[in-house]
Amino acid sequence: MEQRAHRYCVIMCGGIGSRFWPYSRTRLPKQFIDFLGTGRTLLQMSFDRIRAIVPDSNILIVTNERYASLVREQLPEVDDANILLEPARRNTAPCIAWAAWHIAARDPEASMIVTPADHVITREAEFEASIREGFAFVESHDALLTLGISPSRPETGYGYIQIGDRIDGNISKVKTFTEKPDLELAKVFLASGEFFWNSGIFLWTAKAIRKALHVCVPDIAAAFDSAPEGTYTDPAAETAFIARTFPGCMSISIDYSVMEKADNVYVETVSFGWSDLGTWSALFDLSPKNIDGNVTQNCNVIAYNCSGNIFAVRGEKLIVADGLEDYIIADADGVLLICPKSREQKIKQMVTDAKLKFGEKYE
Amino acid sequence: MEQRAHRYCVIMCGGIGSRFWPYSRTRLPKQFIDFLGTGRTLLQMSFDRIRAIVPDSNILIVTNERYASLVREQLPEVDDANILLEPARRNTAPCIAWAAWHIAARDPEASMIVTPADHVITREAEFEASIREGFAFVESHDALLTLGISPSRPETGYGYIQIGDRIDGNISKVKTFTEKPDLELAKVFLASGEFFWNSGIFLWTAKAIRKALHVCVPDIAAAFDSAPEGTYTDPAAETAFIARTFPGCMSISIDYSVMEKADNVYVETVSFGWSDLGTWSALFDLSPKNIDGNVTQNCNVIAYNCSGNIFAVRGEKLIVADGLEDYIIADADGVLLICPKSREQKIKQMVTDAKLKFGEKYE
Repeated sequence: MEQRAHRYCVIMCGGIGSRFWPYSRTRLPKQFIDFLGTGRTLLQMSFDRIRAIVPDSNILIVTNERYASLVREQLPEVDDANILLEPARRNTAPCIAWAAWHIAARDPEASMIVTPADHVITREAEFEASIREGFAFVESHDALLTLGISPSRPETGYGYIQIGDRIDGNISKVKTFTEKPDLELAKVFLASGEFFWNSGIFLWTAKAIRKALHVCVPDIAAAFDSAPEGTYTDPAAETAFIARTFPGCMSISIDYSVMEKADNVYVETVSFGWSDLGTWSALFDLSPKNIDGNVTQNCNVIAYNCSGNIFAVRGEKLIVADGLEDYIIADADGVLLICPKSREQKIKQMVTDAKLKFGEKYE
Repeated sequence: MEQRAHRYCVIMCGGIGSRFWPYSRTRLPKQFIDFLGTGRTLLQMSFDRIRAIVPDSNILIVTNERYASLVREQLPEVDDANILLEPARRNTAPCIAWAAWHIAARDPEASMIVTPADHVITREAEFEASIREGFAFVESHDALLTLGISPSRPETGYGYIQIGDRIDGNISKVKTFTEKPDLELAKVFLASGEFFWNSGIFLWTAKAIRKALHVCVPDIAAAFDSAPEGTYTDPAAETAFIARTFPGCMSISIDYSVMEKADNVYVETVSFGWSDLGTWSALFDLSPKNIDGNVTQNCNVIAYNCSGNIFAVRGEKLIVADGLEDYIIADADGVLLICPKSREQKIKQMVTDAKLKFGEKYE
């Protein structure tokens, strides 16, 4: 079997994207939306990007069971057996553990990339080269590898990874993971050249991540170990087992539970034009601006005395605006949001307020 | 025949309400909208209000022919023969002339009130008493009577009428009509007690207004005089005559052509809680405010750090807004407008821009 046949991809696709409300909704989160107006959704673009590296039959989608039909509709190329449906939201550690046990049962020699479905990558050739380098590294080392993005600005919205000793090519030991810094610290990080954005994209072998889970979060490893022989290669048995077991797993991120604790953690520093599309402001920064410095997404806009705004509509609409500076104006599915970009961290609270006051359909 | 049977009402209903765009649209102007959320449109409320004073069979609606079906739908009580359909927009003088010739042909002893369809009147009992006083006056004097509203604020959006010698009850000779004043002058007007808002509501006999039109705008009078005997009592003949004649009339207001020139012009000063609903700001001023000083119309709104705004939606929508002060936020029929109240005089230009850039459906 050639090496490529042992390579797998796990696309994590269960988020609800509430920071892009009302454009992204609980019933149609942002990974399922043609966010950049390219004709492909973020999930589809993630799938397209990985096909050059990993065989189609080795690409798995992990999502919440409520999104099963969206995944099937958007990725008809993916076999049902490769869609892992979580019966509950338990953050990334149980999600990745399940995928690792599932893949290991199919192929004990498997290596895997784990990637969120909703990131944007602009330089796909560089992405491909970086991922190949990462696969080669984890296949020849007992290593947990995370991708660190070369920072282009003193971003305060991301965690950072400080690199330690250079091992090989673009790969170094991780010295520290940091929380989101304040602006002063972010400037220091940027100037140092030692700090990289934590992308949430990982590579490892199934064997290495299973070993790390056993050491770092033994409860989760034990839960997946408890499956009877043959469970992970029998779809009906696996579904029944997961329905019983998965909801009992603790909800914890892979970063917190494993990456910040294991001692074989490495970072590959990359610069393939990345955005996690985490916020409206990130989307604004990433998008082409018109002559007044506004961004418009899927809508016609006539703007007077307006700059620094992002206008986003799902559905056909003309927006006529006067006198707005640095606002988010988003209209979709019965909700209009008008909010200064500087207060976008309040959007989650707004969603909660809307749901409490006017019902779940506004979630 | 008792006096009431000679009283007629002409409701002018042909405006396009562009100052309330996008809520009011060329294909659905504001008089046809349930603007105040009462369950009745402004036209229906105008009709309801006059029924106590004038027999149903004497209430005429003058509108543009494109709005015929809207009028019939909203006022099924009105006989088709009482709906006068203008083949072209020619301002108020030709409209009123036609109605006067039409009514005079039915009833040479007729008196009439002429009123726009899109005003709001809050104290209907006082309105009724005022109109009865006005009818009694014009039926006993050779008089053109306009209603002057006691001003409650130094409004710069209205024309004013200065009263001269008191004649009888609330009725005085008109001393002058004024253009819209600046704020300084409006304050002087308000303090003087001599100046009243020009309401655009008129009373006169058919005989008196026809005489005045002959003197002040003889071309228009001659046009309507040119109808063959029996035209105005034969609907088919009248329609054919109007189709030929009306578009050739000069487009001019009754204020400019007659009221400011005739020498038998009187004003009845009234205070029945009036608004011409001329602008979003007027609607804001008239409407009840919530605790933050915002007005919401037909929509659910969650507002943070917002005050002095008017939110208006046609259709179901939740608006979530942060950090807006003194804005108009109006969403209807594929258009969202966000505009400071202080720049609402630009809305007409915005409609023109929208139409030029994106097509007539946005008009």
